[in-house]
Amino acid sequence: MDFLVAIEVNWPPSNDERQKVELIAAEAARASQLAGEGVLVRLWRIPGRWANVGIWHAESATRLDEAISSLPMSPWLDVTVVPLADHPSDPGRAQA
Amino acid sequence: MDFLVAIEVNWPPSNDERQKVELIAAEAARASQLAGEGVLVRLWRIPGRWANVGIWHAESATRLDEAISSLPMSPWLDVTVVPLADHPSDPGRAQA
Amino acid sequence: MDFLVAIEVNWPPSNDERQKVELIAAEAARASQLAGEGVLVRLWRIPGRWANVGIWHAESATRLDEAISSLPMSPWLDVTVVPLADHPSDPGRAQA
Amino acid sequence: MDFLVAIEVNWPPSNDERQKVELIAAEAARASQLAGEGVLVRLWRIPGRWANVGIWHAESATRLDEAISSLPMSPWLDVTVVPLADHPSDPGRAQA
Amino acid sequence: MDFLVAIEVNWPPSNDERQKVELIAAEAARASQLAGEGVLVRLWRIPGRWANVGIWHAESATRLDEAISSLPMSPWLDVTVVPLADHPSDPGRAQA
Amino acid sequence: MDFLVAIEVNWPPSNDERQKVELIAAEAARASQLAGEGVLVRLWRIPGRWANVGIWHAESATRLDEAISSLPMSPWLDVTVVPLADHPSDPGRAQA
Amino acid sequence: MDFLVAIEVNWPPSNDERQKVELIAAEAARASQLAGEGVLVRLWRIPGRWANVGIWHAESATRLDEAISSLPMSPWLDVTVVPLADHPSDPGRAQA
Amino acid sequence: MDFLVAIEVNWPPSNDERQKVELIAAEAARASQLAGEGVLVRLWRIPGRWANVGIWHAESATRLDEAISSLPMSPWLDVTVVPLADHPSDPGRAQA
Amino acid sequence: MDFLVAIEVNWPPSNDERQKVELIAAEAARASQLAGEGVLVRLWRIPGRWANVGIWHAESATRLDEAISSLPMSPWLDVTVVPLADHPSDPGRAQA
Amino acid sequence: MDFLVAIEVNWPPSNDERQKVELIAAEAARASQLAGEGVLVRLWRIPGRWANVGIWHAESATRLDEAISSLPMSPWLDVTVVPLADHPSDPGRAQA
Repeated sequence: MDFLVAIEVNWPPSNDERQKVELIAAEAARASQLAGEGVLVRLWRIPGRWANVGIWHAESATRLDEAISSLPMSPWLDVTVVPLADHPSDPGRAQA
Repeated sequence: MDFLVAIEVNWPPSNDERQKVELIAAEAARASQLAGEGVLVRLWRIPGRWANVGIWHAESATRLDEAISSLPMSPWLDVTVVPLADHPSDPGRAQA
Repeated sequence: MDFLVAIEVNWPPSNDERQKVELIAAEAARASQLAGEGVLVRLWRIPGRWANVGIWHAESATRLDEAISSLPMSPWLDVTVVPLADHPSDPGRAQA
Repeated sequence: MDFLVAIEVNWPPSNDERQKVELIAAEAARASQLAGEGVLVRLWRIPGRWANVGIWHAESATRLDEAISSLPMSPWLDVTVVPLADHPSDPGRAQA
Repeated sequence: MDFLVAIEVNWPPSNDERQKVELIAAEAARASQLAGEGVLVRLWRIPGRWANVGIWHAESATRLDEAISSLPMSPWLDVTVVPLADHPSDPGRAQA
Repeated sequence: MDFLVAIEVNWPPSNDERQKVELIAAEAARASQLAGEGVLVRLWRIPGRWANVGIWHAESATRLDEAISSLPMSPWLDVTVVPLADHPSDPGRAQA
Repeated sequence: MDFLVAIEVNWPPSNDERQKVELIAAEAARASQLAGEGVLVRLWRIPGRWANVGIWHAESATRLDEAISSLPMSPWLDVTVVPLADHPSDPGRAQA
Repeated sequence: MDFLVAIEVNWPPSNDERQKVELIAAEAARASQLAGEGVLVRLWRIPGRWANVGIWHAESATRLDEAISSLPMSPWLDVTVVPLADHPSDPGRAQA
Repeated sequence: MDFLVAIEVNWPPSNDERQKVELIAAEAARASQLAGEGVLVRLWRIPGRWANVGIWHAESATRLDEAISSLPMSPWLDVTVVPLADHPSDPGRAQA
Repeated sequence: MDFLVAIEVNWPPSNDERQKVELIAAEAARASQLAGEGVLVRLWRIPGRWANVGIWHAESATRLDEAISSLPMSPWLDVTVVPLADHPSDPGRAQA
C-alpha cells in the first residue's frame, strides 16, 4: 500500500558542517536504494524548508517504519505518515 | 510544477441523495479529463473520510486554481495546496 | 496490519430521533459483522462524547476504508486513522 | 479500566549513544514486567517516529501514573493519556 | 478516581426558548442528584461562555460516561475529560 | 475567587539530579504553606507527565501571580490560568 | 481586578436584518451602562471582523460573567477571558 | 501603513445562485474603487479556495476596518489582518 | 493608532542570574520612557507566566516595531501584535 | 508566478554577536541581488518579531527554493510558502 510521508529535518545550525555533508550524501545513497526496491516512489522538496514530502510504498506500516528508520539522518527527522487508500480516479492506477 | 493537493468534501448528510450521485459521476468524469491533460497526476483516498490527496501538475498556481475550480463539487470542497519543488533523489524524475 | 481509528459522531440534536435509534442498531449489527471478520479488533467509548476509539485490522488502507465506509452512520462520522507498526514489546504479539 | 497511552521519545541525537542502548534495553525489560502484571496490554510503534501508542490497564489514573513513571526512559517521554470507557460493541469484552 | 471535566454547551440561539428553560431546570436537578451521589464534586462557570468545568468522581471512565450521558442537555454538550491522579501535596486528600 | 491552574514542569533530563531532588522537596514545602493559607485548594497529577492541575483561591490575579511566583520551581514551570465563576449547581458552595 | 475580554459575534448573514439593527442598538446601550458602572473600561474593534477586544474591570470572575451575560447579543457571542495581574511598569496605575 | 489581509469567503453552496453572481460583481466594483483610492494595493487568489490575500494601505486600523466593512460580501467574509512594518530591504520602497 | 501587544519572555533558567536582574531593571527603565512618550499606554502581567499584555500607541507598525525593538530584553521576547480599530462604545475615547 | 513567503529568524540570543552583524549585512546584500533579479518583489517586517513577510516571484517552487536557500541566514530561518494565483481585481496586474 501507499503512504504519504512528510519529513522535516531538525538539524541545529551549530552542528558540525562536515558531518552534515556526509549525512546528506549517505541519505541520498540510501534513498536511491529504497527507490530501487520500489519503497520510495516519489519525492519533492518543500520550498524554503529543509523538508520533503514523498510517496512511499510498503506492505505494511511495519515495513515502512523499517525503511524510514534505515535513513542515516533518522535521529534528526520529524516524520509524519498518512496511510493512502486507492482512489478509482487515480491516473496512476494503470501503471501500478 | 507539481502541487500536493488535499481535498475534503463537506457534503451535509441531509443533502439530496440523487444530486450526490450525479455530482460524484460528474466529478469522476472531470477528474478523468484532468488526468488526460496531465493536470491530475496521482490521486488517493484518505481512509475513513470523504477526502483525497493527490499530485497535480500545472504551469502555475493560476492554472491549478482554474483546474480545481472546474470540479463539479467545487462549492463543497475544502482544498489545501502545497507547492512542491524538485528533489534530487526523486525516483520519478526520469519519467517526467 | 493494525490501525488506530478514532471516530466522532456528528449527529445534530435536531435530527429525527427514530432514525437515530435505527442507525445505532444498524451500526451495532455492522460492527458485530466486522468483529466476526477480524476487522474490528477492540472498541472503546471516549467518555462524555459520542465518540469511540478502536483497533482495526486490515490488509491495507483500501480495505480499511471499505470497512469504515460500510458503517451505516458513515455520512455522520468524522474519522481519523493512524497506521500502526509492530512493536517488539507488544504483549499481544503472541496471540496474533 | 483501560487507557490509551501515546508516548513520544524526546531523545537528543547528541546524547550519549551507549546510554541510549542501555536505556532501550531497560525499557524493554520494564515493559515486559508491566505486560506480565496486566498493566501493559497492547503496544504499537508509530511508523517513522520514535513513538508508540498502547492500551494500558490500571485501577485508576494514580496506578497508571506510577506504572508510566517506572519506565527507565520516563524523563525523556512526552506522554498523553486518554481514559477509555467500555463500548457495547467491543469484540474484546468477552476475553476480559 | 477523579476527573477534570470541561463542558461547553452548543445551543443554537435560534432554538426554542421554552425548551431551553426546561432543559436548564432539568440539568440543575440532575446535577443535584449526581452531587448527592458523590459523582459531581465541584462545578464552576467559565466566565463569558455557556460552559463549565468541574471535578467529577467515578470508579471508572465507564461510570463517568454514564453519569455525563444522563445529563438532559447531553446531546448539545461538547465534553472533554482529563483523568486525574493523586498528588502528594493535594490539600484535599485528608477530607477524601 | 477560584482559579483552575495547570502547571507543566519543563526540567531538562540533563539537569543536576541533586538540584532536582532539593527543588521537589522545597516545592512540596511551599505547596503545604499555600494550602495552609487557603490559596492552594486542590491538586492532582496529570498521569504520565510531570504536570499537575489544581484549584487555587486568591483575591485577584495579582495575588495568584504572587503565589505561583513564590514556588521554588517557578523558572521551570509553564503555567496556564483559567478564571472560574461561581456555578449555582456547585456542590462545594455550601462548604465555602 | 482587570480582565482582557475578546468577543467574536457569530451572527448568521441569513438572520433577520431588523433584529440585527435592534440588537446592535441595545448592545451599545448596555455597553454604555457597563462603562458608567466602571465595568467596561476600554473597547476596540478587531479590524475586518465583527469582533472586539476590551479591558473589563470586576471584583471577580462571577461578576464579570454576570456583566457579559447581560449583553443583549450574548447568545451569539464567542467570548474569551484572560485574567490580568498588576504590572509594576503599568503607566495606568496612577490613574486607577 | 500597509496591512496583509487574508480573506476567506464562507458562502453556503445552498445559497441563492443569482445573489452570488450579483455579489461577486458588486465586490469587484468596490474592489476597483478601493484600488483607485490606493487602499487596495495588491490582490491574489489562494488556489483551490474561495479566498484571497492582499496588500492593503490605510492610515490606521480604523480606516482599514471601514474599507473592509464596505465590501458587499462583508457578512460572509472571515478576515485576518496582519500589520506590516517597513523593511529596509523592501524593493518596493522607492516606488512608494 | 492602538495595538494590543502580548509579550512572552523566553529566558532559560540556566542563564546568568545577575544578567537577568540587570535586564529586568533596564527593561523597567525603558518601559518608563516609552510610557512617558505615550507609546506604552497600559501593561498587565499574565498570572503565572513571565509574560505581559499591554496597550501600545504608535503612528504605525513601523514605529511600534522600533519601540518594541528598543526593549533591552528584546532578543528573548516572543511578541504578538494585534492592530486595534476604534470602537464607538469605547469608554476611553473621550479621554484620548 | 507569485508566492507569499513568511520568514521567522530563529537566532539564539546566546549566539555570537559579531556573526549576527555580519550575517545581517550579507542577508541584506543577497536580498538586494534577488530584488534586482525580480525574485524578491516586496518585503515587510512583522512588528515586534525578527520576522518578515514578502512577495516573491519565481518560475516555479524549485526556483523559489533555490532563491531562499541562497540566503546567508538560511540555516536559521523558518520559512512558510503560500502559492498565489492571479486575481481579476488585483490593482497590480497592469504593472506586471
